[in-house]
Amino acid sequence: MGRLEIVGLEGIGEIRPGDDLAGVIAEAAAASAVGLRHGDVVVVSQKVVSKAEGRLVPVDPEDPHDHRRVVEAETVRALRRRGDLVISETEHGFVCANAGVDLSNVDEGWAALLPVDPDRSARRIRDGLRARAGVEVAVIVSDTFGRAWRRGLTDVAIGCAGIAALVDLRGSQDDRGRELHVTEVAVVDELAGAAELVMGKASGIPVAVIRGVEEAWFGGGSVRTEIVRPPAEDLFR
Amino acid sequence: MGRLEIVGLEGIGEIRPGDDLAGVIAEAAAASAVGLRHGDVVVVSQKVVSKAEGRLVPVDPEDPHDHRRVVEAETVRALRRRGDLVISETEHGFVCANAGVDLSNVDEGWAALLPVDPDRSARRIRDGLRARAGVEVAVIVSDTFGRAWRRGLTDVAIGCAGIAALVDLRGSQDDRGRELHVTEVAVVDELAGAAELVMGKASGIPVAVIRGVEEAWFGGGSVRTEIVRPPAEDLFR
Repeated sequence: MGRLEIVGLEGIGEIRPGDDLAGVIAEAAAASAVGLRHGDVVVVSQKVVSKAEGRLVPVDPEDPHDHRRVVEAETVRALRRRGDLVISETEHGFVCANAGVDLSNVDEGWAALLPVDPDRSARRIRDGLRARAGVEVAVIVSDTFGRAWRRGLTDVAIGCAGIAALVDLRGSQDDRGRELHVTEVAVVDELAGAAELVMGKASGIPVAVIRGVEEAWFGGGSVRTEIVRPPAEDLFR
Repeated sequence: MGRLEIVGLEGIGEIRPGDDLAGVIAEAAAASAVGLRHGDVVVVSQKVVSKAEGRLVPVDPEDPHDHRRVVEAETVRALRRRGDLVISETEHGFVCANAGVDLSNVDEGWAALLPVDPDRSARRIRDGLRARAGVEVAVIVSDTFGRAWRRGLTDVAIGCAGIAALVDLRGSQDDRGRELHVTEVAVVDELAGAAELVMGKASGIPVAVIRGVEEAWFGGGSVRTEIVRPPAEDLFR
């Protein structure tokens, strides 16, 4: 704790279905001044993960209904609709616009879907980086979501590996020696948002390396089991 | 763009009503290796801002109803209630738990309320840092909020000065030369969340300095006018 460094990784080229994403990241890191070190957190944008995993479906660019059809297929439950916008609950339990289906930065005529299991995607990249670069890092797969009561989008974690998604400070003492009650911090979401600040939207930098993250946070972790709020807890579904 | 550094500022002591917070921050920065430079973003936790501004009210620690009474007084509209928890809309338009009223890290018998106008608080600190340290920085006042559909808390901006709250990339082109549609990024929220990673909850570091933020984002900015979602746009109130 105390000091973080966040660097966008240059030199990740176009990613295509079947590409070894961990290999590409390891190569780009080796060629850059940043490198990869034990204890780094590697944040990877969903778009390149979906591409590498072949999560692309054809859509007719002339027919807006075709995009709509894909969104509906990816939507388990529609929480709200307004015009073309659907606030979807996805198979993963995420609540996001248009079920995370994305037409930007993919070839015309194609849409990118969310990875089937983004925690598993993160684990694969983590295992690949251990094999390729010989380093033990944590991996976060990030995507850009809206919020119910705040304008603007932020990047959040949709999958993680090697790092706790929530850091539970309940029971820690505040600086008066009293118990703090609810302070489970979604550190993977804060890390994903921080990474977005160096990735940008159209800058072609889909990977960021975060160095200096608190060692105690490393270990097992899952966005699905820790962050996704079960409907029974949910006050707004 | 490309590289950010985030450092928690040590040496901010106990803050009391009437304290010159900008002066305290300038002094702590001057005494640290970090310093303050033109173009830095200074993130200040709401708690110390509220303390400096005297936004403290007495509560009877033996009487839970007394805390409740303060929460109700700060709540303009209750969106949901569950047990002791109220999801409040505040005077500012924020939607958050218990109207942001906080009993932790304040003296027993007192509760901290949100600043009356957190954008103004940020402007004052920014002006104070210009006067005290001779640097032009951006300032974000941060607080810890929950999310509707995700577990865990993250820090977000409740006020800002000298930096755009939203960076509008609509109309920018993606890497295929097509227009990107909705990509207004809430950079102040991502910066606030990033800062939290070095501040922690109980570590007594209420200020972080972020260095390397994209110059184009500096300028006018307001959480209230840019980030707070007007009820007419809101699908979940």
